[in-house]
Amino acid sequence: MSCAIGVGLIGLGNVGTGVVRLLSENPGAMERRQHADFRLCKVAVNDPDKPREVDLAPGVVTGDVEEVLADDAVDVVIEVTGALPAFDWIRTALQNSKDVVTANKAVIAEHGEELFRLAADKQAEILFEASVAGGIPVIGSLRSGLVANEIESLYGILNGTTNYILTRMTRGEGGYEDILADAQAKGYAEPDPTMDVSGMDAAQKLSILSRIAFNTGGTASEIYCEGIDRIESRDIDYARELGYTIKLLAIAKRNEDVVEARVHPAMVPVGSLLANIHDEYNALEVIGSAVGRQVFYGRGAGQMPTASAVVADLVSLAERKKSGSDSSVGDLISPEQAPRNFADINATEIRYYMRMIVADRPGVLEQAARILASQQISIASVMQQERDLEGGAVPLIIVTHEAREAAMSQAVKELDQLDFVRENVRLIRMEDLGERGDG
Amino acid sequence: MSCAIGVGLIGLGNVGTGVVRLLSENPGAMERRQHADFRLCKVAVNDPDKPREVDLAPGVVTGDVEEVLADDAVDVVIEVTGALPAFDWIRTALQNSKDVVTANKAVIAEHGEELFRLAADKQAEILFEASVAGGIPVIGSLRSGLVANEIESLYGILNGTTNYILTRMTRGEGGYEDILADAQAKGYAEPDPTMDVSGMDAAQKLSILSRIAFNTGGTASEIYCEGIDRIESRDIDYARELGYTIKLLAIAKRNEDVVEARVHPAMVPVGSLLANIHDEYNALEVIGSAVGRQVFYGRGAGQMPTASAVVADLVSLAERKKSGSDSSVGDLISPEQAPRNFADINATEIRYYMRMIVADRPGVLEQAARILASQQISIASVMQQERDLEGGAVPLIIVTHEAREAAMSQAVKELDQLDFVRENVRLIRMEDLGERGDG
Repeated sequence: MSCAIGVGLIGLGNVGTGVVRLLSENPGAMERRQHADFRLCKVAVNDPDKPREVDLAPGVVTGDVEEVLADDAVDVVIEVTGALPAFDWIRTALQNSKDVVTANKAVIAEHGEELFRLAADKQAEILFEASVAGGIPVIGSLRSGLVANEIESLYGILNGTTNYILTRMTRGEGGYEDILADAQAKGYAEPDPTMDVSGMDAAQKLSILSRIAFNTGGTASEIYCEGIDRIESRDIDYARELGYTIKLLAIAKRNEDVVEARVHPAMVPVGSLLANIHDEYNALEVIGSAVGRQVFYGRGAGQMPTASAVVADLVSLAERKKSGSDSSVGDLISPEQAPRNFADINATEIRYYMRMIVADRPGVLEQAARILASQQISIASVMQQERDLEGGAVPLIIVTHEAREAAMSQAVKELDQLDFVRENVRLIRMEDLGERGDG
Repeated sequence: MSCAIGVGLIGLGNVGTGVVRLLSENPGAMERRQHADFRLCKVAVNDPDKPREVDLAPGVVTGDVEEVLADDAVDVVIEVTGALPAFDWIRTALQNSKDVVTANKAVIAEHGEELFRLAADKQAEILFEASVAGGIPVIGSLRSGLVANEIESLYGILNGTTNYILTRMTRGEGGYEDILADAQAKGYAEPDPTMDVSGMDAAQKLSILSRIAFNTGGTASEIYCEGIDRIESRDIDYARELGYTIKLLAIAKRNEDVVEARVHPAMVPVGSLLANIHDEYNALEVIGSAVGRQVFYGRGAGQMPTASAVVADLVSLAERKKSGSDSSVGDLISPEQAPRNFADINATEIRYYMRMIVADRPGVLEQAARILASQQISIASVMQQERDLEGGAVPLIIVTHEAREAAMSQAVKELDQLDFVRENVRLIRMEDLGERGDG
């Protein structure tokens, strides 16, 4: 019943080691799919002499990636380096008619379309479940399980590092800088955390999901992106008083012919499922035309969850190879449909939380309200408390009804000029998430 | 790129109508998988003259199921009747080398193994995503997305009707009988609700998931099953005071060579994800060796969610047929592994909530404690309140440490004999769900 598949691995770091472990130490799991019989032919690493946690047969490890890409015994190339040249390696593998499994979100987000077209030309596969949400099968579910649905929207918590930081801030364990430093010390955050805290990592993942769900053609750089680095503990406290929790959301919504896609901190109702995704966990909420609302929840990163997704792709590839299937990338580059564009963020209409630190004197609320009214922004509620901050300043929280992003930007610009405004106005978007049986 | 697949449909009720709608009215969704081109050849119904909500070509509708099963133009038979003879129809379809898609949990739970073996013999497929959790792709995720994992446990809320009733009871909207009657009046519960409220529906679904996850050989009748019909509002209130919510859980856990499987009301911590699955929604929590904990959430029943799963299976079948794949049922009948058995419920060790209604007089707690001690059952906490019930009786709540089911049954038998015990003792199992980043 079995046919051996030659596997070449590029990268034997955290995830690569996990993949080798799953392939060698956990055959029981694979038995269920008895077609799958893998032979690890070549493993390319930076330093072939470095001691490794896994045993590999002599001659398997090489310092030269080309040996993996050129080896005739290699049917499938697994790329798990996260490195920059990965795009070239993956392209070469496909050009050599090898199938590819990758965990590299940056490459798929940036060069996905070119790689999918190349794969289709070469009748090769490229699978990338591990690139989004680690071991949670969100890509497989969107491509297969929900294939009969028009997807209406995606709401994701797709970055574990920022969710970990926000969770700890929400628990009152410290401010942003302190918790980030602690997370770095513990290895939960990168030495350079920019990709995570800026929202770019989530935007890359969102661009991949959006292509699958909505056939968008754009890359992550076209997605509006705002990080968590300006979230203050007091905003988390005020949010709580209003009944909300702050999460970094990755949102994509079909809106006629365009797709509204954005990554930013958002207030979600405390009782909602998304508000209750804690620590480093990820979640993706999908609303489909037939199924309604679904949520997928789990670990979005880490050695074994990511390796699990890589090996699942490998098993799926093995089944296809065995049956001599065509490449399955067709749904990713559907030629019948023109790709959708991302909408301009300025056209977004949404409710806002607006936090001002103002001088405690008469007429302040009136002037603020006048500026908002001049931009057609309607106020839903005001929270002004007698907490005296330094220098006689007080916080003034205004929650708006739905307002256009462009109008809000203009209003903030004007508010920031007023002499009683002591700090730049802070905006946080509010997502009420509708009636969803989870609140 | 396309090859037409002949489809025969048995049943044009709620779900069947949804399937026809998705196939005919929503081609946009299918475009993404451009291999899929379906032709609805035959539709068998009870009454061919009854007006239908969907338009079908002349000659397609028949009152004779055999016409579907014998039609050479039919490549795939979709069975969505939920009817009793469905087993025979599915068997005949497979014998005729037709592929089968079914939503029929009873047939798969009871006769799955025979049907899978027959499908393998005939190189036909049988797919049944719609049989568990409606449109949520839990079966696909277990069979493919999590294939590299040894599954450790499943915790599911798999029955929408009972979750709806318990949710409303938890919101204080009435007692069990009233809410059930209201749900029946609104069409949310069946006229005969036995399958749902007894837990049997959930047990059938659990037996299907357990076969996939753990290779169990048993059917639903071998799963310990306790319904929600004896849950009282006061138990929900006492649970809340203890920090718990009552849910009907379907649980299967690998335990060495056996699988502990049970369906019963359980107390789960109020902050846990499962406690926050409301109304008719379903959720399945999976713990896998590599991915850790994942949760899948969504609508577990209803016309379009169920039809979504049926059509997803159909698309997956079309892709396989196009490539001339072997049957994929291999993972369901792995010949290398002996099937696992379900464990004896008496061997289960778990914490219990024990609610007694006792006479308000000295020595009661002492006697109760002595009986528990004689069974080696250790008390974790006691809640005795001064609420005077009718006739001078008071509620006495005892929460135990982990205790064996057999010991607990014996203790309850002895307690029920005591003259100060005014009603039969009620037990509800407690599932603390561990540390899971959602509480």
